[in-house]
Formats: sequence, C-alpha cells, structure tokens
Amino acid sequence: MDDVQNQIDNRGIKIQQTGIKNVFLPLVIFDQQVQAMIKFTVSLTKNFRGTHMSRLMEILTDWTSKPLSMININSILDEAIDKLNTDSAKIHIDFKYFVERDAPVSKKKSLLDLDCFIEGETIEKQRNFILSVAVPLTTLCPCSKEISNFGAHNQRSICRVQLHFDNVDQIISIEELAKLIEMQASSPIYSLLKREDEKFVTEAAYQNPKFVEDILRDVVIAVRKIHNVKYFTVECENFESIHNHNAFAFHEEKIC
Amino acid sequence: MDDVQNQIDNRGIKIQQTGIKNVFLPLVIFDQQVQAMIKFTVSLTKNFRGTHMSRLMEILTDWTSKPLSMININSILDEAIDKLNTDSAKIHIDFKYFVERDAPVSKKKSLLDLDCFIEGETIEKQRNFILSVAVPLTTLCPCSKEISNFGAHNQRSICRVQLHFDNVDQIISIEELAKLIEMQASSPIYSLLKREDEKFVTEAAYQNPKFVEDILRDVVIAVRKIHNVKYFTVECENFESIHNHNAFAFHEEKIC
Amino acid sequence: MDDVQNQIDNRGIKIQQTGIKNVFLPLVIFDQQVQAMIKFTVSLTKNFRGTHMSRLMEILTDWTSKPLSMININSILDEAIDKLNTDSAKIHIDFKYFVERDAPVSKKKSLLDLDCFIEGETIEKQRNFILSVAVPLTTLCPCSKEISNFGAHNQRSICRVQLHFDNVDQIISIEELAKLIEMQASSPIYSLLKREDEKFVTEAAYQNPKFVEDILRDVVIAVRKIHNVKYFTVECENFESIHNHNAFAFHEEKIC
Amino acid sequence: MDDVQNQIDNRGIKIQQTGIKNVFLPLVIFDQQVQAMIKFTVSLTKNFRGTHMSRLMEILTDWTSKPLSMININSILDEAIDKLNTDSAKIHIDFKYFVERDAPVSKKKSLLDLDCFIEGETIEKQRNFILSVAVPLTTLCPCSKEISNFGAHNQRSICRVQLHFDNVDQIISIEELAKLIEMQASSPIYSLLKREDEKFVTEAAYQNPKFVEDILRDVVIAVRKIHNVKYFTVECENFESIHNHNAFAFHEEKIC
Repeated sequence: MDDVQNQIDNRGIKIQQTGIKNVFLPLVIFDQQVQAMIKFTVSLTKNFRGTHMSRLMEILTDWTSKPLSMININSILDEAIDKLNTDSAKIHIDFKYFVERDAPVSKKKSLLDLDCFIEGETIEKQRNFILSVAVPLTTLCPCSKEISNFGAHNQRSICRVQLHFDNVDQIISIEELAKLIEMQASSPIYSLLKREDEKFVTEAAYQNPKFVEDILRDVVIAVRKIHNVKYFTVECENFESIHNHNAFAFHEEKIC
Repeated sequence: MDDVQNQIDNRGIKIQQTGIKNVFLPLVIFDQQVQAMIKFTVSLTKNFRGTHMSRLMEILTDWTSKPLSMININSILDEAIDKLNTDSAKIHIDFKYFVERDAPVSKKKSLLDLDCFIEGETIEKQRNFILSVAVPLTTLCPCSKEISNFGAHNQRSICRVQLHFDNVDQIISIEELAKLIEMQASSPIYSLLKREDEKFVTEAAYQNPKFVEDILRDVVIAVRKIHNVKYFTVECENFESIHNHNAFAFHEEKIC
Repeated sequence: MDDVQNQIDNRGIKIQQTGIKNVFLPLVIFDQQVQAMIKFTVSLTKNFRGTHMSRLMEILTDWTSKPLSMININSILDEAIDKLNTDSAKIHIDFKYFVERDAPVSKKKSLLDLDCFIEGETIEKQRNFILSVAVPLTTLCPCSKEISNFGAHNQRSICRVQLHFDNVDQIISIEELAKLIEMQASSPIYSLLKREDEKFVTEAAYQNPKFVEDILRDVVIAVRKIHNVKYFTVECENFESIHNHNAFAFHEEKIC
Repeated sequence: MDDVQNQIDNRGIKIQQTGIKNVFLPLVIFDQQVQAMIKFTVSLTKNFRGTHMSRLMEILTDWTSKPLSMININSILDEAIDKLNTDSAKIHIDFKYFVERDAPVSKKKSLLDLDCFIEGETIEKQRNFILSVAVPLTTLCPCSKEISNFGAHNQRSICRVQLHFDNVDQIISIEELAKLIEMQASSPIYSLLKREDEKFVTEAAYQNPKFVEDILRDVVIAVRKIHNVKYFTVECENFESIHNHNAFAFHEEKIC
C-alpha cells in the first residue's frame, strides 16, 4: 500500500507543527485521574508531504494505562521525535484538577476545580515546559466600597498563571501554586460554605477590597519567588457584577 | 440527475424534524440588524427518503435582504411547508439584541446586549410562537447581608424568560420584556457607569437583597400580567461570587 | 444567626426547581472515573423564601468517595427531598465516558470518548430516569455518491439518543447503547486507524451511503427494541463537509 | 468623591494590559454591520493603583454610531492613551464577516460567514496591526483516496491566517484574503448548493486531494505574496470524518 505521506515535497517549506488536536483521553496526572484534552504535534521536514498522525495517537494511547508526571513529558516528546523521524515536538494537555478545601469556620471539606494545563516542547534538543493553573477567586471593588455608604460590588474572578521552565526538576505543585494565588484574593472561593462560613468570607472580602490590578500585582510579586521559573504570565479576569462585560489585567515577565 | 431524496422509503417512520442547523446569517429583526444563528427544519413524510435541504437555505437567504418581524415567521414556515411538500415546519433564531440604557445618575448612554431567540412552529396548521429574552442583572444575597456585620456577596446573574403565544398579534417587545425583568433585580446592570453611578447601583443593590428564588418569583408575577401568553418559563442563574458553581432556579406555568 | 432562607414567603408561588448548577466533581459512574458537570435542584414550597443550597453540595460531595450507578440516583434524590424538606428533586449529570474500540483490520486498540448524561427526577414520589449517549459517526451522502462520477462527500456526525425509564432495573449499558447506534452509521469512527484500517473505513462508508434521515430512522428502529424504555428521542447532526452549517434530524416517540 | 484608582501604588509594577473584555457592541467594520466582541486594554504606570475602565467603554460606545476601518484603530488607541494618561493601548475585535458566493454551476448566491478579528496595538509609539480571517474549506485525504478502491474520506476544515502589519495603508481586504485561502482547498465551501453544484464540488474535491499539511503549505506560499506583511501565521484544522479528533497544522513566518 502506497505511503502517500512519505512522498517527496517540493514546496520547500518546513512545517513547524503538524499533528492531532482536541483528543480526549483519561490520564493520570500528578496522581489524579483527569479527563485530558490534548494537542500533540511534531515538526515536518520540508522534504516530506505529510506526517503519520496515527503514530501520535499510538503514543498517547499508551499513556492511558500508566501515571504521567512532568518528567514523562520528555519521554513522550522524544518518542514522537523518534517515531516521526523529526527534530521537534510539542504537547499541550488541558485538564481539570481538583483540590480539597476546608470551609474557613465549619471546616467542612469540599473540592474546588481548577482549570490547568501542562505543555512541553522540544525544539532541536532545546526543552521548554509550562505549568498553568487558573484559580477562581472573590474580588471586592475598593472604589465601590470607598464611595458607597454601605455595601460594595464583588464578583467571581479567575486568575491564571503560566510558569515557564527550562527543565522539570523541582517544579512547584498545582496545590502550592493554587494556594499562592488564592492568598492574593479579596477572599478565596469554596464549593461548600455553611452560614458561619458565608459570614466569614463576606466580611473578609469586605475588609480586603482589591481591584483586578491589585490581584495581578500581588500575584506577580508572589510568582517572582517561585523557584526555577524563567518566564511567567499572570492574567486576572473579573466577571463584574455591575456590568455585562469583564474587567481584565495581564502581565508577563522574564526572570534572568 | 437522480433525485435520491425522493426515493421511496419503506421504514414507515415519519420524521418530526429534519433540516439545517448552526446557519449564521445577517438578518434585520425588529428593526435591528443582528447576527442570527438559525435552526430550520420541516417534517418528512414516511414515504420519502430525505428532504431537500438546499430549499430551506434558499428561503433563509431571501430574508437577508428584507426586515423580519414576528408576523413574517408565518410566511417563512408556510413557504417551507409548501416548497418541501410537507405539513409541519419549525424555525429557531438566536441573536443578540442591543438596548440603550442611561446610567442612573450621570445619565451617560450605553448599549446592553441581550441574548434572545424567536421560535415559530407550525404543526399541521397549529401555530406556536416563542419569544425569549435573557437579561443580565445584579443580585445581592439576603442571607449574606443579614448575617454579616458589613458587606454582602453579590454577583452577575442572568434571568431568561420564554413566552409562548398562539398568534403573533400584539406581542410584547424585547425592550418592554427586558425592562420588566430587570426591574425585579437587586439592581439593573449597565455597560457604562461613572463613579456617581457606581455608588448608586452599589447602594441600591445593598438595600434590595434578593435570592435567586426571589428574582424568580418576582419575574413570574410580572410575566403573568403580559397579554396573550399561553405558557411561559422563567429561569434565573447567579454566577455566585463565593463559589465556583452557580445558583439556579426554574419555573414554568400554563396560563388558561 | 438568622435563617433568612426559612423566612415565610407570601407570594404564593411554589418553585419547581431551585439548586446548584455547573458543579464540577470527580465521580465514579458505571465503574469509570469521570469528570462530572452536575445540576442538582429541588422544589421549594410556596411558604419558604429560599432553599439551603449548601445541603445539596454536601450530598454531592459525599458521592465523590464511592461509586455511583443508576440505582443510587434514587438515594441521592431521596436524601435531597428529606434534607431540604420538600417533595421533588432532580439531578442531571453530564460526563464523558470512554469505550475501547479495535481498529477494523489492524485490531489496534484505542479509546473513543462519548458525551453522556444521566438524569433522575422524583416528583411527588413519581420516578423518571434518562440515559443519554452521543456517538460520533461517519456519514457519506447518498445523493453526492449517486450524482458524481467519483467520490462522495462525507463527514463526522453526532447521533444522540435519550432513553426515558420509569425505573432503573435492567437498564441498557452505555457500551451496548453506543454499539447499537454506531452500527447504523455509514461507518463507525475510531481514534486510531493504521493504513489498512483507513482503506477499510473509507470503502465501507462509500458502500453504505446514508442521509442524516437514514441514520435517524435506523437508530429509531434499533432503539424501539430496547427493553423497558417508555419514551425516547434521537437526534443526528452532520458537520457537512461541503457547507459551513450542519444537517440535522430529530425524532421522539412514546412507547406504550 | 475619592478617586481610589488614582491612589499611589508602591509595588513598583507597571502593568502591561488592564481594561475590559467580552464587551459586545454593534459596529460597522469595512462597511458591514457586525456583532463585535471586544477586548480593550491600556498599560498602567507603576505609580497608580488602577485604571479608569469606564473611559474605555465611553470611547467604544462612540464608535457604535460611525463606521470603523483599519485606519480608525489608530485614533481609538491614541484616544485611550490620551484619556487614560498612559503610553500603550491595545484593542482586539472579533466578529463574523459575511461574503457572497456564487454556487459553482447554478450560480445561486448565498452568504458565507467568516470568523475574523482585527487587532491594533500601540506600545510607546510603535504601531502593530493584525488582520485575521478563518475560512471554512473542504479537504479530501490523499492517502485515503490512494489506498481505497473507491471513495476517499473528506471533511470540513478551517484555515486561519493572521497577518501582521506595521501600518494600515494598503492592507488586503477580507474578501481578497478569503478568496486566496479558499483557492488552496480541495474545494471551497458554499452555503447553498443545488444538485448540479453538489456534483461539481464532490468531483472537484476528489480530483484535488490535500492533506492538512498541503493546505498549510499552499496557503503559506500564497500569503508570502501579500503586500506589506511583516509576519504571519497560518493554521489549518480538519474535523476528520473518520476520527473524533482533529488534524492540525501550524506555521509562522517573519518577512524581512
């Protein structure tokens, strides 16, 4: 049977990424079983017409039966580079990760869902890794509090942090990163709050008003202290309770 | 050229709806140009294998060059029934509709976007129409206010109303329906608020705390008074500022 | 601390559903760990102002540590009715379920993801259950094949079936239901196909052309034979390769 | 009334982007009325605590009453920089743009919807503009055609091109760019096709099989010839008819 993908290509264009996208698979990431959505690509030399995408799916399917951690990202990329006979590969894995939280007063336990992704890229032997976590928060508006005789508008917000690393040794855990982010909020968010907890978070948020810019700056300061990071981005988005649009702030920084 | 759709079908199943979905077209609805997403179907007699879907698209394409109101829904359905040689047709049109709002103190004008749909169905000469509007609101939690020494959690909410009619005469306008819904909120929402407005809506919401169930009941009472409605549903969803999930309430009612 | 939810309400409106929505939790459903998105509501008597939503979250959180099957839906609903002191409760759980498939020639194994939901409702002691599975398929257009000298347009399609039951005894499994649906396609879909498999599915689909209406009717015939079903709906949607919109068909049927 | 945003900030962090997101407004872009979704941000000097977001909404609201073209992006950014007293601003506008297409044989006219965005950024007097268009296409698999005795799998694909410019003079129109992209497909896509047209596109696609990598390379070659572009990206995604995931390719290029 003819191998059409292996036909010689004369257009002279090396393709930077080609592969599969929106692949859903059950994976075990950092000891938690997750529903992963995966984008997995390799580069394609200018000489060949197409890549053999089924090999990428074979590699992924193998990982549905064993736990995956940051360190394995390298094996996955190396296997792709080897099997597809190329020099670069990239994988991006989106998943929800659940962390346990105790309500602040009643101490009732519940699970909070965090939208995370890990990404690994190997470009001609150069490694790059990203860990990203998005944490839901409460923000209470300092302006609204200051100018109003009572009350202050507040809302659910999402703060997303992306950390870039050169290598996967000693990378901060999702739990630690999430904790660090939610400490900068007007108040953390919980799935389960009894009445005494609701009183606590309401008052805590009122006593700790923060603009979207305040959260952003406080998270930036906290992230700067994380070990090993070479570059990071922080974005914060408030689902404003008084508008039908969102307030947004973004910052990126290289760490020398 | 063979007409495969017209082949005789022996399975004995009359299909209730067959047609086209996720059709995007620019339409003029209630004098406003909108970006419509359309689902347009007809029934298919048990004798034929398939319907001629391109005829549905021809009918829709004609309406991109002239204004469409509730009354025209009948013509569209009748044309489909006639051209597809059947007895039933249904159209569902989703669109964003913009209404102008004056900020409460500064009177600055801005536009608020409402997610709306109109739906028409003719089943063997029986007509049914739906007008649906979703209005963003502010809700402030009565429990949080009561139990806290200061502050109260509040959030953006969406209240959706669906009104069902037998005929399209004297149907309430989107503007009127939206006004009626937002009057039941802790406070309406605005796209543009200067500082004096923000003070106003913050204090207004604090003085008017409402559960998702309160909004729902107050909207139900308001909707009952609308002329001509034979059945309606109301749903209200709060994007809780203290949780990563939403509070939700739903009610439906037949009007005899 | 005041119980504001328990305040007497004078509006005279019994609310049909009030509760929590867009709750993400890890659950074990039919022996598979899934990422569930849950809507969980109860009715609220006309006498009380609000429901105690944190109790619904407490009930759900308990189920993150033990397996859940259709039979447990009853316990969940009964617990909600009891703890919220009401007469009706409803739960809707969306999740992806993975089934293993062997490629048709190479027999390579891979996982196919199915969008499923289970729903249970108890209204004043009357039980109702829904099992719904959406299966991705290939459809090849009979008209395009017939009128063209070579080739035929084909595309990915999704066929969704909803089965309603009075009780949860002897309910068909997701695997069986998925198999039954995909047997009606021009060809099933696989995550992993080697070259000999791709030849097989291409030729199989070409030899088995089906309109969206054909799939719908064949699935209807198959579903009619499932034990215990009292009502069902089938919908099929083709992501047409020659259009930027979808072809769609829908059918519902009561089984006496 | 206190201006809390104007408070002195001591954290020493200049914020790169702060502003509003998910703003929906009706705009007239390139002479077509569109439903725009807008993200509009400015930088914030390290000395101030927050930006005055309502001023961004005021600027946008003004543009709902007059046509907007690429050249006006500069005025919008300059106005933001001026009114917010900063040195950098950025605007991103997503919208659907409709282009008319004649069916290939019957010449029936219909509208095709394209997902577009324009983006403008001014960073300390340095201008950057992006025009992006996503065009739906048909792709037919060369491997499937080659190895199969009859038929070949094909599917809807989306090809997205982003063009970056230093200035807005002589920028290619959306219509031209869309034409240029769809000429590289196995066949263009149409909203309305009569039987003779369906025969035409089916046979055309079969005679013109292309991998996702083929489309990508052919679009890259075409885009290189566009006047004035300093950098571009192309991505192509096939909604594979034989898989439940997508095939994907990406390329970026700097033009010196």
